[in-house]
This record gives sequence, C-alpha cells and structure tokens, in this order.
Amino acid sequence: MSLATSETTLGVIDELRALLGDRLSTSQAQRDSHGQDEGWHPVEAPDAVAFAQSTEEVAAIVRICHAAGTPVIPYGAGTSIEGQVHAARGGICIDVGGMNEVLAVHAEDLDCTVQPGVRRKQLNDYLRDTGLFFPIDPGADASIGGMTGTRASGTNAVRYGTMRENVMSLTVVLPNGEIIRTARRARKSSAGYDLTRLFVGSEGTLGIVTEITLRLYGIPENISAAVVPFDSVEGAVDTVICTIQSGIPIARIELLDDVQIDAINKYSNMEHPVKPTLFMEFHGTDAGVAEQIEMVKAFGEDFGAGEFQWSDQLEDRNRLWQARHDVAYACKAMRPGCDIWATDVCVPISRLAECIAETRKDLEGASVPAPISGHVGDGNFHLCFVLDPNNREEFNEADQINDRLIRRALDMDGTCTGEHGIGLGKRKFLREEHGDAVEIMRAIKMAIDPDNIMNPGKMLPAQN
Amino acid sequence: MSLATSETTLGVIDELRALLGDRLSTSQAQRDSHGQDEGWHPVEAPDAVAFAQSTEEVAAIVRICHAAGTPVIPYGAGTSIEGQVHAARGGICIDVGGMNEVLAVHAEDLDCTVQPGVRRKQLNDYLRDTGLFFPIDPGADASIGGMTGTRASGTNAVRYGTMRENVMSLTVVLPNGEIIRTARRARKSSAGYDLTRLFVGSEGTLGIVTEITLRLYGIPENISAAVVPFDSVEGAVDTVICTIQSGIPIARIELLDDVQIDAINKYSNMEHPVKPTLFMEFHGTDAGVAEQIEMVKAFGEDFGAGEFQWSDQLEDRNRLWQARHDVAYACKAMRPGCDIWATDVCVPISRLAECIAETRKDLEGASVPAPISGHVGDGNFHLCFVLDPNNREEFNEADQINDRLIRRALDMDGTCTGEHGIGLGKRKFLREEHGDAVEIMRAIKMAIDPDNIMNPGKMLPAQN
Repeated sequence: MSLATSETTLGVIDELRALLGDRLSTSQAQRDSHGQDEGWHPVEAPDAVAFAQSTEEVAAIVRICHAAGTPVIPYGAGTSIEGQVHAARGGICIDVGGMNEVLAVHAEDLDCTVQPGVRRKQLNDYLRDTGLFFPIDPGADASIGGMTGTRASGTNAVRYGTMRENVMSLTVVLPNGEIIRTARRARKSSAGYDLTRLFVGSEGTLGIVTEITLRLYGIPENISAAVVPFDSVEGAVDTVICTIQSGIPIARIELLDDVQIDAINKYSNMEHPVKPTLFMEFHGTDAGVAEQIEMVKAFGEDFGAGEFQWSDQLEDRNRLWQARHDVAYACKAMRPGCDIWATDVCVPISRLAECIAETRKDLEGASVPAPISGHVGDGNFHLCFVLDPNNREEFNEADQINDRLIRRALDMDGTCTGEHGIGLGKRKFLREEHGDAVEIMRAIKMAIDPDNIMNPGKMLPAQN
Repeated sequence: MSLATSETTLGVIDELRALLGDRLSTSQAQRDSHGQDEGWHPVEAPDAVAFAQSTEEVAAIVRICHAAGTPVIPYGAGTSIEGQVHAARGGICIDVGGMNEVLAVHAEDLDCTVQPGVRRKQLNDYLRDTGLFFPIDPGADASIGGMTGTRASGTNAVRYGTMRENVMSLTVVLPNGEIIRTARRARKSSAGYDLTRLFVGSEGTLGIVTEITLRLYGIPENISAAVVPFDSVEGAVDTVICTIQSGIPIARIELLDDVQIDAINKYSNMEHPVKPTLFMEFHGTDAGVAEQIEMVKAFGEDFGAGEFQWSDQLEDRNRLWQARHDVAYACKAMRPGCDIWATDVCVPISRLAECIAETRKDLEGASVPAPISGHVGDGNFHLCFVLDPNNREEFNEADQINDRLIRRALDMDGTCTGEHGIGLGKRKFLREEHGDAVEIMRAIKMAIDPDNIMNPGKMLPAQN
C-alpha cells in the first residue's frame, strides 16, 4: 500500500478522471475491496480504481500510467489467493470486470473469444445451446482474464489440461500501451516465439490481457459422477495412480481426506462416511463411460475401496461438485471467526502418496486444522489451514508447515504451486524452484516492462 | 555462408580444437553437410563443426563462442526444411547428434528424459518394453532436440498435441554458456513464466537444448488404421470436420489429394484408387475403437466416401504410414532430377475446405506439380512443389504460389507455418502474421541473446 499518494500519482488520477469520469474511483471502499483477493494477504489498496470498458480504453489508461511511471494492477474477479491483485507499490488498479462480453463463438472450430471479465460460469451458460463447453474449473467463479493470469486449472485439468493448453490466443495491452495479438486462431503454429504461453501465467506482470481465445469441447454424450470412500489415503491415491497410468481418460478425480470430508458433511449437509474419499467424473459415450467406470472400480477394489456410488443425473452431479467447490467455506466453518490459508503443491504422481503421507504426519502435532483436498490425477493437492487471524503463533505454525510442504514437493521434483500462482505469497520459493532460470524470467520482464510498472512486487523475488 | 573465416573465428577454432580434439571438424565435407537441411535452401556452411558429448561440453563450446561473438548453430539430425541449420552468418555448428541417450524413463509418471540427439524412432524402440510410447511423429526420423526447436507435430497431433503440449521441461545452455532447467517434472505448475514453452519452437535462437523431458502415453489396447477414398477433396475435408467437431478422439486423420495418391502408388507400389483419400488411425479399447470407426464411417457416407478399408494388423499399419511418411520421396520421384520444396500452412478447420479448394484452383494453371497432403484434423496442410533446381522460372512460379498460399491462410486467421517453422524461408511472413508482436519477440531475443550469437539470421525478420 502506498502510505501517501505521490504528486505524480495525483497527476495521473487527474488525467484518468478526465478520461473516465465516474469510472475512476478513489473511494476508500473501492480501493480497499480492490486491494485484496480471497487469500490471507493483508489489504494493500491501490491509489485509485479505473473501471475499463474496452481494449482501447485499457491502452489509454496504461499509456497515462506509463508516462508517469505509475504502477498498474489488473483486476478481474479478485478470486486469486496469493495476493496477485494487491497494490504492493500503490498505483492504479484497472478493473476489467465490466469487460464481460463473449465476443465470438466459432462452434465449427471449437473455439470462442471473450473479454477478460467474463466469468467461467457465465461462459458455460452462454455456450449451453451450442452443445459446447469450456472445461477449466478452478472452483471459484473466476474471470477468464484472471484464470489466464494465474495459469489456472482445477478439477477437469486431468483430462482437458490447464489454461496453458486451452488459451489459443490473447490480445494484450503492453506496459507502454501498445496492443498486440499473440497468435492466430489456427490450432497449431510454428511461427515464432510462443507469446501466448508467455503471457498465460504471467500474473499481470507483462501486460493486461483484454481478449482471450479459448478452446472449447463438445458436451459429452454421457457424464457420470462417482464417489467412493477408502480405508486409507494411500489406498485412494494408489487407485488414482493406477487410473492415470492406465490411460483412462477420466475427467475429474479428486481426493478429500477424512478431515475435509467431515467439514463438507457439516457445511453442505452431506452424509459421506468420514474417510478419505475420491470424487470422480467420467465423460464419453454411454459405452465408453461404462467401460471406464468398470476399470476404475476394479482398481479401487484392489486398494480398499468402499461402496462405489455413482450417478449420471445432472442434479446429483451439481450437488457433488458444489460441495467439492465449497471446501474453502467448509474449512472456514470448522472454526467460527477464523480465516483460511490455502496453499498448493504439485509433484510427479509417483511421489504423490509419499508427499501426502509425510504432510499428514507433519500435521499430526499441529494446533491448526488443515484439511487436504486435491486434483490428485495431476499430482496436485491443497492444504487449507484454518487460522485465528489474531493469533500470531498459529500463523507462524502454518507458515512453517507450508515451508516444509513446499520444500518436500521441490525435493520430489515438484513445484511450489500447481495452480495458485506465485503472487506475493510464494516469491521466496521461485528461486528455490527455478535456480538461475529466475534471471531469465527477470530479463524477460525487464525487456517487456523496463519501467517495472506492471503489477510490480509480484512473482519475481527481489534482486540479490 | 561466411565467405572468409575471420581471424576471430580462427582463434575460436583453435580454442575449440584444444577442447575437443578430433571432435572439431573443419573439413569441407562436414561443413557442407552441416550447412543444409532437407529443404530447398542453398548450402551455407559453418566455419567448423563441433561434435559435443555432454551438456557441460556444449556449455564450454558456447562460452568460447560467446567470448568471441562467434555465431553458434545447433544441429540435430538435419531434417528441418526451412533452413534452420544453415550457417547464415558463418560460425560454429554444434552437432548434438552424438548426445543420443535416453537418460531416464519414469514409467509410473508417464514421462522420460532424453538427450537432444535421440531420434523419435529410437525412443519408441527403447520404450517398447515399457508399454509406453511417444506420439509426436513429423514423418522424418527427426531428433528430439530438433523437434523441440521447430515445435514439431505431424500425424498424431490431432489427438496428442504437438511438442508444445508434450515437452515438460528442458535443460538449456544459454548464449553466455550458463545452464538452466526450465521446469520441474510436475504435470502442471503456476510458478513463474513458462520458459519451457518459450524455448520450444525458438529454433535455436535463444539457446541450445541439451536435455528434454517428454510426456509419454500408454500404447493403446487397440490401434486400427483405415483408408477411404472420396469423390472430392471437399467430401474428404467435410468428413474430417464432422469427425473433429463431434469430439471423436481420432489419433490420425490425413488427407492426400489425387495427385499425391498417384505419386505414392507409383513410389510405394500401392494400388489406391487415384482419388482424394483419407488415411486414419484410431486408438482405444477394442470397444472404443469400434465405436469411433462406426461414427466416422457414418460421416463418410454423407460425403461421398468410397470403400472403407481398415486393419488392426501392425504390418498393414506400418506399410500405410510408411507410404504416408514417404510422400516427399514420392513427390521427388514424379520428376526425376527434380528437387522438392515443401511448404505448410494451418487454418481454422472451418476454413480448411475453402483454403484447399482455392489453392488447388491456383495450382491448375501451374507448370510445376504440387501434390497436397496434410494433417487436416488440425487444419494443417502441405504443398510439395516438384521443381527443376536449374529452372529459375519454375522456382519463381512456386514462390508466387507459396506467397498466395500463405496470404490466403493469414486472411483466414491462420498461420504461415503449422509445423515447419520460420527458419530462413518464412522470415518475411512473420511480421505479416504477428504485426507489432514481432517487436516483443525481438525484445526477448535481445534480452536473452544480446550479442545475437544464437543461430543469427533465423526466424526474426531484419529490422526496419
């Protein structure tokens, strides 16, 4: 947070007000609400919030900020959790939430182009009549722009990939206000550096995404969901590993440990046995789905699976996945008045059982509860600490468990974050993960944003 | 080609000889053979060829070249076709063909790590006993390093993606001789800029890849191939479009026009009806493959398909795909003494039929034959001009047809190359395709390779 708005920034605010009128806000309420996301990081308010309505307007705002060297922070839906939207060095928040139109659907090409403020649920509602859907589902009803920024993934990634695989092209406003398009609408290309993938996951540090072309998929003939409890986390994870190694094209395979199941039973009024449990979904033809289910059932039986309940009814599935998506709220409800701190790692699947087992052991003596859930088909899982925000000791304890979790994942050739991103919260781990490659990242940042105005203080660690 | 080896380069050669002994060659034969690929571009020989044996040795060679500002050109198998290995500004060719070990196979994680000189056929031979395979198949028995450099794809990409989707991590020697690794072995990550995807497709202009971690897949229970002739190219393409739009997970779907079929009948002793023909392959369980075939058959019947011949026998399949892969040789055999010039574009699949039809119309009056074949499931197709290398008029005619082909593809929101890359041959189209985004590519090149020693003169167009 900028403790005092500088004179330069005051000049920028005047210019922006001339451009935007009422769509520039300096109210404390707007600044505060835009200076935080759904994570645990304390509010860092921008000096003003600009509500943009078009690519050209974003470019005009950025040009004004660029001329003054004023930081720019892109804001979509504010559902990130590592502090990606915080104004770590003050400046202007550009809220693109109002740029929420689906610009084109090319059903015959299985793609669409959207503005960054479009939410994922909105997009799928819009697409319903076309028989197509966009699979990436991080849980939160995030904006497509934000999902692009954090290289989001979620429950369906095991089959459909992440934003990395599903963004085909971007329109980007660069730090100097120029507008580029990163790729054509062809399915593949060998023409030049892959700028699309460079901007996907760059967390607003290289430019502001104002249009996104996405891959779409046909809604499968059959979608069936299944729930199955296990005697042990290991049995559940081994079932996942066999499923993935066998090449079964499972669409979702999610683990919730016993602590997490207990929390969602209470929060979502469900009656799952309080055991480590897999939530699954199968997509395909009727025959194909039946075949997949039989194969996974056979694996489960080898690893202590309980009763395998399944349904191909939309209502049952929606209830199941809503409960899965509500784990954060379920965690929060475990300790009234407490906050949650969600962290994630991703490891090669051969190390997943070991990584979870060691993490659970580490949690045994902890005074803060931390249910485990995860997109285990990718080797990705989450801890969700439930903390008293006023208790420094609890925070420090979680911080130490988080450090050990991440170093455990790195030791297993895994990553410090599978899908949440670096933001403010994981900057200290970037060098541990990437070594000197961080200096190449920094060189790219300097080349594209030499004045360091785009979301400064995020992702890249401070220089030595 | 450097007309005269400079004194600086002579000093570099002395230093490299001290390092490498006999593994540095300045023989004209070696220089010439390393100064050309399988394309039509005239030889541009490097000043010397260094045969490297390890990452550390590549780094040592690059450090010597970096200190002197001498160009470095990476060389794998020399199967590129847009002049990627040519020494456009002289310098040292680093041949990594001898770095051809499979370093690790993590069967349980469905990945492996290889040196850049490993050939794709060698890798699949090596993997056979594991029940896994690496799907990317550009036709030529290319090196994995070269396939990484050009972002290769080929026949299987419609199902398995390209090198973009299948490279998980790289070890890279940077232009200053430093060694980085671009990512961990986790299936997904949101930790920092996607350096892996930046180096994939960079055609050796940002560094030299010395280790590649690749995704692997289980060999399907059933693999069936099919061949079906059509009355028209449009009928064949419409069948492809319906197949893709229906989400059928077809593994290969290739179009060969009547001219191409005639050529392969003669070259490979086959007896296909001389009609536009689809070559297809289906991967899955027995039931799944049967289901896929039935669906595609039904589409074919709507669009004038002839007899649908299929086989699940390895020998038949191998013969079929060998003939497909030999199209370049079949083209060459059409006009003894002639050379071939292969070009490729990729368009959104909704524009594919139109793009091919207009291109065939353009070819009608041409004096050089140019069969069409392509990975049409991706919207990607090739023209293969068969030219008299001593006839300037034929060359100019092909050049004009190629220009019109590419501008036609760009007008359809396609790309100037789906899989061959830019190299020397398509530099002039990079700006037409990407506009000002080319300057961001240039800024990245300058940031990582400020002295422009890595494969200079390739990919990026000359500055205005």
